[in-house]
Amino acid sequence: MKQRYSDWVHAPAAKPDEAARQAAESRQVQLTKPPGALGQLETIAIRLAGLQGCVSPTIERVQVTLFAGDHGVVAEGVSAFPQAVTLEMVRNFARGGAAICVLARELGAKLEVINLGTVDPSPPELQGEVTDRRIAAGTANFTLGPAMTQTQLQTALDTGREAIIQTKESGAQLFIGGEMGIGNTTSATALACALLNCPADLLAGPGTGLDPDGVSHKAAVIEKALTLHRPHLTDPMESLRRLGGFEIAALTGSYLNCAQQGLPVVVDGFIAGVAALIAIRFNPDVADWCLFSHASAEPGHKTVMQALQVTPLLDLGMRLGEGSGAAVAVPLLRLACALHAGMATFGEAGVSEKDD
Amino acid sequence: MKQRYSDWVHAPAAKPDEAARQAAESRQVQLTKPPGALGQLETIAIRLAGLQGCVSPTIERVQVTLFAGDHGVVAEGVSAFPQAVTLEMVRNFARGGAAICVLARELGAKLEVINLGTVDPSPPELQGEVTDRRIAAGTANFTLGPAMTQTQLQTALDTGREAIIQTKESGAQLFIGGEMGIGNTTSATALACALLNCPADLLAGPGTGLDPDGVSHKAAVIEKALTLHRPHLTDPMESLRRLGGFEIAALTGSYLNCAQQGLPVVVDGFIAGVAALIAIRFNPDVADWCLFSHASAEPGHKTVMQALQVTPLLDLGMRLGEGSGAAVAVPLLRLACALHAGMATFGEAGVSEKDD
Repeated sequence: MKQRYSDWVHAPAAKPDEAARQAAESRQVQLTKPPGALGQLETIAIRLAGLQGCVSPTIERVQVTLFAGDHGVVAEGVSAFPQAVTLEMVRNFARGGAAICVLARELGAKLEVINLGTVDPSPPELQGEVTDRRIAAGTANFTLGPAMTQTQLQTALDTGREAIIQTKESGAQLFIGGEMGIGNTTSATALACALLNCPADLLAGPGTGLDPDGVSHKAAVIEKALTLHRPHLTDPMESLRRLGGFEIAALTGSYLNCAQQGLPVVVDGFIAGVAALIAIRFNPDVADWCLFSHASAEPGHKTVMQALQVTPLLDLGMRLGEGSGAAVAVPLLRLACALHAGMATFGEAGVSEKDD
Repeated sequence: MKQRYSDWVHAPAAKPDEAARQAAESRQVQLTKPPGALGQLETIAIRLAGLQGCVSPTIERVQVTLFAGDHGVVAEGVSAFPQAVTLEMVRNFARGGAAICVLARELGAKLEVINLGTVDPSPPELQGEVTDRRIAAGTANFTLGPAMTQTQLQTALDTGREAIIQTKESGAQLFIGGEMGIGNTTSATALACALLNCPADLLAGPGTGLDPDGVSHKAAVIEKALTLHRPHLTDPMESLRRLGGFEIAALTGSYLNCAQQGLPVVVDGFIAGVAALIAIRFNPDVADWCLFSHASAEPGHKTVMQALQVTPLLDLGMRLGEGSGAAVAVPLLRLACALHAGMATFGEAGVSEKDD
């Protein structure tokens, strides 16, 4: 089954630099604080040292790439917002009014918006502001058949990879992938159910704001799709083709390629977490390059994080997507790096060490 | 009993601006995101609007003030580090090598270091870099009698207030109090036991790094002190005098005065949390002005936060003190303010609202 994808998809992940990681670990115990007293800020700095291959990592240049696409399953009435919002938000991204735009400005991060397939195309006035990689007018309704053809899936994966090739060329030290697509919590929940072998009513949540009846209906729609596709859901990429979305596939492709190119990723919330789960199930070494930013309020996220055996850095009750939770974690990574590089050692400061 | 303190201690807290808070709440629901999707970043911005009395709050100018003092109870062998480290760290603060110095630089925050009573005085070369408010060569050993005289307690509270008067004059919009004092988790734990009516073995923890035997010994030392002082521990300020430290009392004084002057506070971890608990027990309206930054790894902190009915913003396993956890939370407050001020509304962006 693997042979059906382009060669790059099967390329191995880069290896973190174990010597740099160990050197960073040795530095941490020399800094003027009780060992371990900075908690996760210590482990982040040590991990980033391994990923960047230097004792004192830095996170100055951050790339945020937003992938947008529409979902055929929206015809089943699974979203609290109308489908037109996907393209309206693409315009909002381009014009700088969305949450992720504000966050990218505050972080000094570069922001790219890629339209992989809204129902209507990006209007001409957004040319130059939105990268047009439109595959189709949304995915097919996955309660009736596969969401994507094999070619569409490959194109979406390729678009994710292209974004990372550009990101690496620009000198970015960290990648954040965001997504926009009305209906994409339904798609992501269906994927999580398929990969984790969970019933839909256990993982389905309100998304952008369904009421309890809406959540029940959404779970029933997902369960119907799972029944239809069940015989083909043993493979993560085939599950992605059948139940995913263009933007989710682009995220998966971007994560795969980040690992191949040795670029650290901060994974956002539920949708991005499912894309990471697919990438990691396809190639477990991708996990080395993924930091998980925040616990989403979307209920399925907890199960996905447990399956990946990770605890996200933040738990702020966020559930927006767009890469916003990942962006909010960036200052913590920067502070972790600054502490690691800037604190005095016991020797430098003339501070006594712990009594034995 | 209240008449024993200077008049300022009894002054009422300022009132948050309810109109500004409501205006901020109205703005939040107009921003281009599902209502509530930014989780605590929304509630922070709304709360800061009320505290700053403006619809779009900002956190540009931050003051970090470090209070240092030694503890007589260290004679009982309750710390993993030697007592000399308090003054050694004061020097490290002055020279910029400590964690809080790195964080203050990264945040563009002002940093002041106040020596309230290390065993040895600050050396002459630190004059000008460390504010000298030395009350005594450390507190008295509270297993044998009160840690402070009434005059010493009042002086420590006054020093906290002075720091806030200066902070307000400098135009700071946010106050962070930090502490340094070898032995001060023992003091803070004793205070938490007294105020929350808990046995010492429930709240005592490793502090800077005691092993399990060390923690048991620390709990026994605290229990001995609680037995000695028990008849006098019904009042929070009297508990502070008997079991506290100069730096803890200065923190308490600073929090009281922040509330009186209407200056928002970000409370650090365990020691600062206990100082806030004392201030809030003394004047419940102080709670309006306190944001709680992070869940400390020191086990007693959870009980203190539960007693205050608050959930800290971060949980990173930090246990350093110095105001470090509060400083790490500042970027999140800033991003909350930036999102609140900078995102487009549905009307501005031409984005459709939620279906009814």
